[in-house]
Amino acid sequence: MGGGRAGITLGRMTSYDAPSTVTATAQAARTAAAAIAPLPRSAKDTALLAVADALEARTSEIVEANAVDTAKAAAAGTSETVIDRLTLTPDRVRAIASDVRDVAALPDPVGEVVRGSTLPNGIDLRQIRVPLGVVGIIYEARPNVTVDAAALCLKSGNAVLLRGSSSAYASNTALVGILRDAVVSAGLPADAIQLVPGESRDSVRELMRARGLVDVLIPRGGASLIKTVVEESIVPVIETGTGNCHVYVDAQADLAMAVDILVNSKAQRPSVCNSAETLLVHRDIAAAFLPLALDALADAGVTVHGDGEVLSYAEGTKVTALPATDEDWAAEYLSYDIAAAVVDSLDDAVTHIRRWTSGHTEAIVTTSQAAARRFTQLVDSTTVAVNASTRFTDGGQFGFGAEIGISTQKLHARGPMGLPELTSTKYIVTGDGHVR
Amino acid sequence: MGGGRAGITLGRMTSYDAPSTVTATAQAARTAAAAIAPLPRSAKDTALLAVADALEARTSEIVEANAVDTAKAAAAGTSETVIDRLTLTPDRVRAIASDVRDVAALPDPVGEVVRGSTLPNGIDLRQIRVPLGVVGIIYEARPNVTVDAAALCLKSGNAVLLRGSSSAYASNTALVGILRDAVVSAGLPADAIQLVPGESRDSVRELMRARGLVDVLIPRGGASLIKTVVEESIVPVIETGTGNCHVYVDAQADLAMAVDILVNSKAQRPSVCNSAETLLVHRDIAAAFLPLALDALADAGVTVHGDGEVLSYAEGTKVTALPATDEDWAAEYLSYDIAAAVVDSLDDAVTHIRRWTSGHTEAIVTTSQAAARRFTQLVDSTTVAVNASTRFTDGGQFGFGAEIGISTQKLHARGPMGLPELTSTKYIVTGDGHVR
Repeated sequence: MGGGRAGITLGRMTSYDAPSTVTATAQAARTAAAAIAPLPRSAKDTALLAVADALEARTSEIVEANAVDTAKAAAAGTSETVIDRLTLTPDRVRAIASDVRDVAALPDPVGEVVRGSTLPNGIDLRQIRVPLGVVGIIYEARPNVTVDAAALCLKSGNAVLLRGSSSAYASNTALVGILRDAVVSAGLPADAIQLVPGESRDSVRELMRARGLVDVLIPRGGASLIKTVVEESIVPVIETGTGNCHVYVDAQADLAMAVDILVNSKAQRPSVCNSAETLLVHRDIAAAFLPLALDALADAGVTVHGDGEVLSYAEGTKVTALPATDEDWAAEYLSYDIAAAVVDSLDDAVTHIRRWTSGHTEAIVTTSQAAARRFTQLVDSTTVAVNASTRFTDGGQFGFGAEIGISTQKLHARGPMGLPELTSTKYIVTGDGHVR
Repeated sequence: MGGGRAGITLGRMTSYDAPSTVTATAQAARTAAAAIAPLPRSAKDTALLAVADALEARTSEIVEANAVDTAKAAAAGTSETVIDRLTLTPDRVRAIASDVRDVAALPDPVGEVVRGSTLPNGIDLRQIRVPLGVVGIIYEARPNVTVDAAALCLKSGNAVLLRGSSSAYASNTALVGILRDAVVSAGLPADAIQLVPGESRDSVRELMRARGLVDVLIPRGGASLIKTVVEESIVPVIETGTGNCHVYVDAQADLAMAVDILVNSKAQRPSVCNSAETLLVHRDIAAAFLPLALDALADAGVTVHGDGEVLSYAEGTKVTALPATDEDWAAEYLSYDIAAAVVDSLDDAVTHIRRWTSGHTEAIVTTSQAAARRFTQLVDSTTVAVNASTRFTDGGQFGFGAEIGISTQKLHARGPMGLPELTSTKYIVTGDGHVR
């Protein structure tokens, strides 16, 4: 989820790590990756259960280390929201351990036969899922991601390089130490899980140059971090998370349903990437829908940034309304704000969306089958919702059991990424001496 | 296939194209991509058949334009092999048109439901294949690729930007003109197929910066071109083609089968990426196998670059043998040369392969089920062949009907890429007013 904004930004160099260090870490990860790639599910699940047990048994160590980070953050005047995200309590550690057990219970993607056939010449062809190899995760000040990402990578047979925020360094160091002990106790190599050394930005730069050692980088965090990694990395990147999501209310729509979906999409949890940021309303339903919708948004504490027509409807309602500019159409507010416009047609809504969307999730509310069909065909985003909230774009909601992030790019993975998205494939060609 | 070495290298700037030109081309492609993405198969197939008919009807134009390129190449002292690849005859144009009809006959990947389920809350979830959008192909002096790539992109609902070699510029200009006329005659936008303007290297650089306009770049050609694109592009890249392929003859192997597979892998068509470049032989079979193998390689005209043991076996045979260096283990010869070494075990063969392979294709020849299983588990390449030639790694051989290239990377596509590999996916979430 793309909610967090704390932590990593790539600015001026503040300290220096010996360049060999990240590279040495990546080389160790590569060796570990080769060792864990062929492991059967049982070996990996045993390690995951050992991790969960160790997290619970060593909770006090984790909470103590975390207190160092939160004290530092408080002294630095960090906002309460960010400190809350950073904080680990015994209850939260228990919840994290429980998530690891859930990952152990998921099917193993490795070895799945994706395609298979016997060719006309009698060769047996199989395409099977294999681990990616070494996965690098660059993320913000959420220590739960440290464990989640490690668990998902281990389950999918990958070695992981964790580059968390420097503001969570003590917590991450404690957590990764415990994870490594646990996987070793289960007979797996410790270097399958490593923290990227150094608190400075240079370690991120080194990761981005480690092509041939690191197979993929997944940046999770603010838009500027993601942009930097996408533009500067020569290691392949999966772009995650920015969500400028739209709700379009069609000419024919159930008004109460449309209000529910709008308010849920915007206000159920505004800080996450699948919350709605723009409302588009068909002109034919605007007079009936907007007064209801604007009052409902007001009740949910939402401020509206509207075009001229929306502002004129707002006058008779409780809502706080401001004139929208191009910045509003482009904004991922992640707050109790929404941009809103009246459009002349479904196609105009699609044109607006194509121009401004980040390609995450767009919803249509309509009773028309033709409109639903046209909208889902024309909108090119990871997820198109018909008569459902934008908030469903989520690995947990989709039944994947876990999520490493939401890809907003088109290559490799698009939308919520579960375990299969952490794999590649290889072809096995079996013959009896076949030649061409 | 990675055979060609002619054409594009990214060197010093030799002339200048207005920066707006490539960008304008990409923007036009983007608009065309939105128009063709939702088209049903019948509309795309009609256009493809119109393309095939037009190529045949206008063969003389094509051959005339091609004569300009081949004359220029001959005047520049280009090698005959390269000129042969560049040459279009009426027969070759007919073959190209026939390939286009074959593409029309393939199933449409767009719209395929990859996953689908009803979630516990009643939401219907479908993951469907959609076009990538705008695909950029950067390739060498093979004008047949111009038509092949355009046909595969059109069939998969993508707009294509073709950046061929400057040495095929007249041919490509004629071909793309004919392709555009044909798609327009079928009611599709001409800008679905465009030649990237300009003969200079700057147009490649501009393509690599066109993130947001171009969805993927596929470089096909020499290793230095591919390396440059991979390292410098901020548009996502699919790396293709370098093939340092290995044949490993296990301790237990049918000798005649092993000789057949070795000679076929090396010598059936040495200039292509799936030909073998290194032979590894288990010590226990070396004395029985190598004398036969080296004579067979000699008969096929192959020079062996061997380690000390291979050289000692070579003495009693007809083969020309030279001492191997690290450069030989790394080499993609693409010629009648092969590196050869004796190894102590299957695991040592795997270690050698992991160190030197480009990750394309490795074959084992063995009668042992355990050895076959271990080799396929431990070797991490796009394709592992058991008792079959490395030459089978090919979209046509795999039954894909067509191939846009062979990916040697792990993200998105690995191995031969057919039509499904030219697509992304999107999720459709359908509810009845569902909220969280």
